[in-house]
Amino acid sequence: MKDTYYAVIFTSIKASNSTGYAEMAQKMEDLVVQQPGYLGHESAQADIGITISYWTDLASIKKWKEQADHQLAQEHGKTTWYDWYRVRVCEVLRDYVKPNS
Amino acid sequence: MKDTYYAVIFTSIKASNSTGYAEMAQKMEDLVVQQPGYLGHESAQADIGITISYWTDLASIKKWKEQADHQLAQEHGKTTWYDWYRVRVCEVLRDYVKPNS
Repeated sequence: MKDTYYAVIFTSIKASNSTGYAEMAQKMEDLVVQQPGYLGHESAQADIGITISYWTDLASIKKWKEQADHQLAQEHGKTTWYDWYRVRVCEVLRDYVKPNS
Repeated sequence: MKDTYYAVIFTSIKASNSTGYAEMAQKMEDLVVQQPGYLGHESAQADIGITISYWTDLASIKKWKEQADHQLAQEHGKTTWYDWYRVRVCEVLRDYVKPNS
């Protein structure tokens, strides 16, 4: 991993209509791991959903944002699946880990 | 909110020993909202826990890291409550929101 990398924080509140959501979410998960510059992602759900994906560079994030199937997913997300969401693109400045004990 | 702000991404896997954890977590939640530079936080739990706090500036993040009660909580977290964790300090470069519908 390079010293500098990037995180995309996606926080969301789902709408009541989840038709087609699970299938699309799985498709996006299968696709994103194949994208150039993709480093990994972390996800958890409570009152809000949080998904963070990690990337080597901003150009890779932009390409994934513009990927055709992903565009379609975003469109459905905006109109149907989410009541609210927020996307934050971040540069990771520092990173420290407690190793598995 | 200023144009530039910061996010601290805390991802964690809990250990089996949670003695005193809930009490300390509540205390930290009560304390963090009083810190200068604190903007808000978001939290969700799955196989991993994700908590993201947002801050106006890096100096405020540093002060909170060094706050006495928080130091104690971190020490317990390292030795007792978490099998694993990772802390990433990030600068938020872009931020866009879908408003509540």
